[in-house]
Amino acid sequence: MSQSPLKVGYIGLGLMGMPMASHLLSAGWEVRVWSRRPEAADPILSKGAQWADSPATLAQQVDVLFTNVSDTPDVESVLLGEQGVIHGAHDGLIVVDNSTICADTTREIAAKLAERGVEFVDAPVSGGDVGAQAGTLSIMCGGKAAVIERLRPMLEVMGSSIVHIGDVGAGQVCKACNQILVAQQMAAVGESMMLAKAMGVDAAKVREALLGGFAQSRILDIHGQRVLDQTFEPGFKARLHNKDMGLALGSARERELTLPGAELAAQHLRRMVEVGLGDQDSSGMCQIIARDSHFDWFDDVSH
Amino acid sequence: MSQSPLKVGYIGLGLMGMPMASHLLSAGWEVRVWSRRPEAADPILSKGAQWADSPATLAQQVDVLFTNVSDTPDVESVLLGEQGVIHGAHDGLIVVDNSTICADTTREIAAKLAERGVEFVDAPVSGGDVGAQAGTLSIMCGGKAAVIERLRPMLEVMGSSIVHIGDVGAGQVCKACNQILVAQQMAAVGESMMLAKAMGVDAAKVREALLGGFAQSRILDIHGQRVLDQTFEPGFKARLHNKDMGLALGSARERELTLPGAELAAQHLRRMVEVGLGDQDSSGMCQIIARDSHFDWFDDVSH
Repeated sequence: MSQSPLKVGYIGLGLMGMPMASHLLSAGWEVRVWSRRPEAADPILSKGAQWADSPATLAQQVDVLFTNVSDTPDVESVLLGEQGVIHGAHDGLIVVDNSTICADTTREIAAKLAERGVEFVDAPVSGGDVGAQAGTLSIMCGGKAAVIERLRPMLEVMGSSIVHIGDVGAGQVCKACNQILVAQQMAAVGESMMLAKAMGVDAAKVREALLGGFAQSRILDIHGQRVLDQTFEPGFKARLHNKDMGLALGSARERELTLPGAELAAQHLRRMVEVGLGDQDSSGMCQIIARDSHFDWFDDVSH
Repeated sequence: MSQSPLKVGYIGLGLMGMPMASHLLSAGWEVRVWSRRPEAADPILSKGAQWADSPATLAQQVDVLFTNVSDTPDVESVLLGEQGVIHGAHDGLIVVDNSTICADTTREIAAKLAERGVEFVDAPVSGGDVGAQAGTLSIMCGGKAAVIERLRPMLEVMGSSIVHIGDVGAGQVCKACNQILVAQQMAAVGESMMLAKAMGVDAAKVREALLGGFAQSRILDIHGQRVLDQTFEPGFKARLHNKDMGLALGSARERELTLPGAELAAQHLRRMVEVGLGDQDSSGMCQIIARDSHFDWFDDVSH
């Protein structure tokens, strides 16, 4: 890959942000970072990244600035807050948000940054920390095509599927659709495996047969196996999926949309958090479904 | 394929049974048939199949007898009724039920036939009339391994995936799991596409992006496109899927299992039937979901 002369900033060096920023560094870009917890930056600073004292300072020093933080208020604070990126804004700066946040707020943030000559791209990802480390994330982009094309060499060191969905916010909408679809599929796979087992049939055989037909899905493949094994660690934490469902359902409600299947799956996730299973993979929701039926996954059901 | 000397019977020459029986005939087996509506047999009689006057007579004349009828009471009537197969039962007769019916009743029927020396295999199929015509069905088998192996040459002219799930009834359990999984996936795909569109994003782009990630499924692929196009004919009729959901949920309730996602999807299907959409493909349930939100699929939503 040809080297780009662009200077890159990365804010948010968590489970996802750290490997993503590290890929940029390894690929030869000059990377500057800021983190709410400065010690979180140590591993990447030791590899050659440079520290900036605030998001505003970082913005002044770079051409492209990535953010990858927990939730909508965190993005607002980092971009528009007191020491925020907007105070270091300069013409031609591109802000790329890899966080999963509210699509409507994303559009508002982008409009505010645009007033300062800043281009904005929302680029939430799917694929988890495993995908972040391997550089095989799916990246769903919202923004101007020309800007996304300019970013493509960077996005390609982080992900294997980079799709331009539409205007600003479209990446977040796509991620919301992904999260409500995945949650419902996990619930459905849990119900199917539970039904098979309760009826005295080898659920592993059922999964295998279903993978060859219309019911095939990546969730049945990967998370169906988790359900069979009842192993939900590590994975995509239920409490994060619960947060994402809140974003999607909030946007839906503002448009007076009712998404009953998504509401139901969100309820399972919320209950996982309530009973202390929030750090498990979200496919662990099958335990909540089973609990309501007093069903024991570890019982050896005979006919 | 080597020809088998076995004589074959087929009962139930509907949209599925007719092409399945025809494949057996084309592959060289001697095929005898019976149908509740004799005129339904005409096309296959003209190709060389022979007519039997009742299920009992047919049973006397064949080694392997297939049934493919609408619902549990139909199978009971054809197999155990007044002129039923059981009255023509002979040692070594194998009955194969391709219908989708109640797994528990299947086990009871098999026990009654076993008393008369009859082997029973439940072999419901997935893949629709298109799969039946192409000979590419998924066939989910319950019964003795040795019996299913004997049937394999016949099953292989009907289907491309023949899976032995377990003992008698296991095929029906697998089909039930398939139907509840598929119904929930259709609902989830409908909700996702509706959310994307309501939020002013190109739902086709969203589907495309999701197919490259964790949310990938055959339903998103095939039925996601139907949702985008809002074309639900021809397909797997909602009223048949509704019937299958009733079977699965009935079995679940008898075991005091609650399957809330399946109940919700079944409700969508029931409502399709109620409002006169029962002959549409079951993915048409997105219209019911949309109706509750006063959402118009054909509206051109702007941002």
